[in-house]
Amino acid sequence: MPIVRIEMLPGRTLAQKRELVRVITDAVCNIAHTRPEQTHVLFSEYSVEDWAWDGRLYVDQDDEDDEE
Amino acid sequence: MPIVRIEMLPGRTLAQKRELVRVITDAVCNIAHTRPEQTHVLFSEYSVEDWAWDGRLYVDQDDEDDEE
Amino acid sequence: MPIVRIEMLPGRTLAQKRELVRVITDAVCNIAHTRPEQTHVLFSEYSVEDWAWDGRLYVDQDDEDDEE
Amino acid sequence: MPIVRIEMLPGRTLAQKRELVRVITDAVCNIAHTRPEQTHVLFSEYSVEDWAWDGRLYVDQDDEDDEE
Amino acid sequence: MPIVRIEMLPGRTLAQKRELVRVITDAVCNIAHTRPEQTHVLFSEYSVEDWAWDGRLYVDQDDEDDEE
Amino acid sequence: MPIVRIEMLPGRTLAQKRELVRVITDAVCNIAHTRPEQTHVLFSEYSVEDWAWDGRLYVDQDDEDDEE
Repeated sequence: MPIVRIEMLPGRTLAQKRELVRVITDAVCNIAHTRPEQTHVLFSEYSVEDWAWDGRLYVDQDDEDDEE
Repeated sequence: MPIVRIEMLPGRTLAQKRELVRVITDAVCNIAHTRPEQTHVLFSEYSVEDWAWDGRLYVDQDDEDDEE
Repeated sequence: MPIVRIEMLPGRTLAQKRELVRVITDAVCNIAHTRPEQTHVLFSEYSVEDWAWDGRLYVDQDDEDDEE
Repeated sequence: MPIVRIEMLPGRTLAQKRELVRVITDAVCNIAHTRPEQTHVLFSEYSVEDWAWDGRLYVDQDDEDDEE
Repeated sequence: MPIVRIEMLPGRTLAQKRELVRVITDAVCNIAHTRPEQTHVLFSEYSVEDWAWDGRLYVDQDDEDDEE
Repeated sequence: MPIVRIEMLPGRTLAQKRELVRVITDAVCNIAHTRPEQTHVLFSEYSVEDWAWDGRLYVDQDDEDDEE
């Protein structure tokens, strides 16, 4: 029954999502003792105009190095 | 005050959403004794590349029959 | 695959939740054409100290009639 | 560590979001005693076809005055 | 129609929540041009055993100064 | 900036949560190329009276083997 949600800025490829699903489903099943057919993983991407951190939207963050 | 959220794969028509809103608002009001003007229903659609079940994204599920 | 979440103030009995689950699962399956074994319904209750509407927490709402 | 989410109908400009981020981050830091670099604000916009209130989707609300 | 959610570690008083509701409702109404009677604010508190940052649950963070 | 949420039935120990945080933070950082100090993981537990699957609350599921 676990439902895992991952909220991120955009930019991950389908291959990265596939790999995240595989590793996270394995982790949840092995560590929390659930079963894959009961495990959901959902990705939500937020635009840099819709996510703020440290008082500024990501679109306004000067230093890209500082945040990924 | 109830807030109802429905997360689904895409593909439902406006008519289906209207009907879901009607039935779910009625259910919440009748069963949980709330009032329509205090009831919100929100739909979120996730792409088949953003929802995984059983260790695989829906875009990678082989057997469409198995899941809807 | 639908996931339905219902956020409410506390006070619903197990019997009310059972009935909501039954009616909402039926609605989702019949209207959105999904299957019960792919449908999740989750309830979250918020204390009257944790939900505000119209600029005031429910614990501070004077008129109980006005809101349920 | 606070994470603030704001769900709205579409139509807010980037300038409005910037101002909301500024005021809300300040409020959370000053009132709840957290720090800006630990505070996230996320916006989610729902289409008028995906949000219902009072038993009807916003796309079907007759009286625009009644709701904003 | 805005719904604002605030997720935090526990420890805020009712007075702090009241003040947050007041300031955030005002901000949303003034900046995003919505109305108080359409604005909801919900608080969710997560235990220090249920929130991780920087690879460690808050219950395991050594340096309290570093995070609030 | 990723925020990972894990919704489960109760019953996981602090040790299991610690291990999940470690593995999931590693996975997100390595696969999605983010940094630990920008990665949050939050656990939410739902009572068996608050989560339904296949049209029945978990508290009413007859066959424990069927679901974990």
